[in-house]
Amino acid sequence: MRMAELSRESGVPVATIKYYLREGLLPPGERTSPNQARYSAEHVRRLKLVRALLDVGGLSIAGVREVLQAIDDRTSTHSVLGLAQYGLATSKARATDESRDWAMSLIRRVAEERGWPLCKDDVVVEALAGTLCTYAELGRTDLLDRISDYAEVAARMAEIDLDLVSGLPTMESIVEGAVIGTVLGDALFTALRRLAQQSASRERFGGDQVSRP
Amino acid sequence: MRMAELSRESGVPVATIKYYLREGLLPPGERTSPNQARYSAEHVRRLKLVRALLDVGGLSIAGVREVLQAIDDRTSTHSVLGLAQYGLATSKARATDESRDWAMSLIRRVAEERGWPLCKDDVVVEALAGTLCTYAELGRTDLLDRISDYAEVAARMAEIDLDLVSGLPTMESIVEGAVIGTVLGDALFTALRRLAQQSASRERFGGDQVSRP
Repeated sequence: MRMAELSRESGVPVATIKYYLREGLLPPGERTSPNQARYSAEHVRRLKLVRALLDVGGLSIAGVREVLQAIDDRTSTHSVLGLAQYGLATSKARATDESRDWAMSLIRRVAEERGWPLCKDDVVVEALAGTLCTYAELGRTDLLDRISDYAEVAARMAEIDLDLVSGLPTMESIVEGAVIGTVLGDALFTALRRLAQQSASRERFGGDQVSRP
Repeated sequence: MRMAELSRESGVPVATIKYYLREGLLPPGERTSPNQARYSAEHVRRLKLVRALLDVGGLSIAGVREVLQAIDDRTSTHSVLGLAQYGLATSKARATDESRDWAMSLIRRVAEERGWPLCKDDVVVEALAGTLCTYAELGRTDLLDRISDYAEVAARMAEIDLDLVSGLPTMESIVEGAVIGTVLGDALFTALRRLAQQSASRERFGGDQVSRP
């Protein structure tokens, strides 16, 4: 298909597609003349993935490029999961040495309780430490009293995540599923958690009367 | 204290503090001369909250202003929770009518299973529908096969969230705790989920050998 049709099929404006091509987020089409190229269904599919990573996942252009590269290189599932996590780790919290030490010891305790191995310089550990330090900065470490319960819930969640991905038929679909599931999975769970909070908040703090069957 | 000390205490640069003052995120100090003002410990505390909402929560300036207003107005806990949720709902996904209908019917099914009341035009429902549509756009609704299990996990999570906030002594601390817990709680859980995923991914897909006790 031509550029115009690619734009119609994917719902992405032509100017944006050209930008993605320049940024290397989309492989060039097959040249049919000096200023025309042909695109395939694969381009449509890739464009939709790019949009999902940018719009829903909030990844940077560079982050998307790295994730796509890893899918194309058929890097190991475990590594691509790591890369997607890297792109998503955006905590910018600054912290004093003292509160960092406190955060790291809390993380080690939780990891030990759950049997999670911790890697040095892991961006996820960094992000978690940054978040914990922000609780401390705000003087609200009381809100971390149930962190072990949260970790237990997170472990159940991760089992479901991995169940879904492990069941996929091909290596490519496992990798792609892991990326999409990681990116969209956060947005999905955040929304579900909010709905559950609304319901729990209504029950505890009053609010609109709700009739139940 | 003077502006310079407020900056030291809070770790926020003077220029940024002036910006927050102009934007109404920080109440003006007590004027002591035409171009000097005195700030209190309350300003330090408020500045830290503003930074947490902006940096960790990723809220917009307008979103932060609304949440602060609700805390200051001592709006009902249930309403402030709703407002914080509003500020956090950022899904920009576009969808066709057909996929929206599919998403809404899936949401209604899950809500019914869990006894969650659904409000019309709820931003959380909007965000959830947008996310579900993105799964559909990518042709990966298979990754939603376990949505009921995710919802069950979300419900357990929300009970812990509300436990923490319900136990707080004053109305102001409940409201502030709900906002901080909502904003930071997502970052916290996302990081815990990633750690749990790493561990589960290592177990299923191999990767670095990890010794366990």
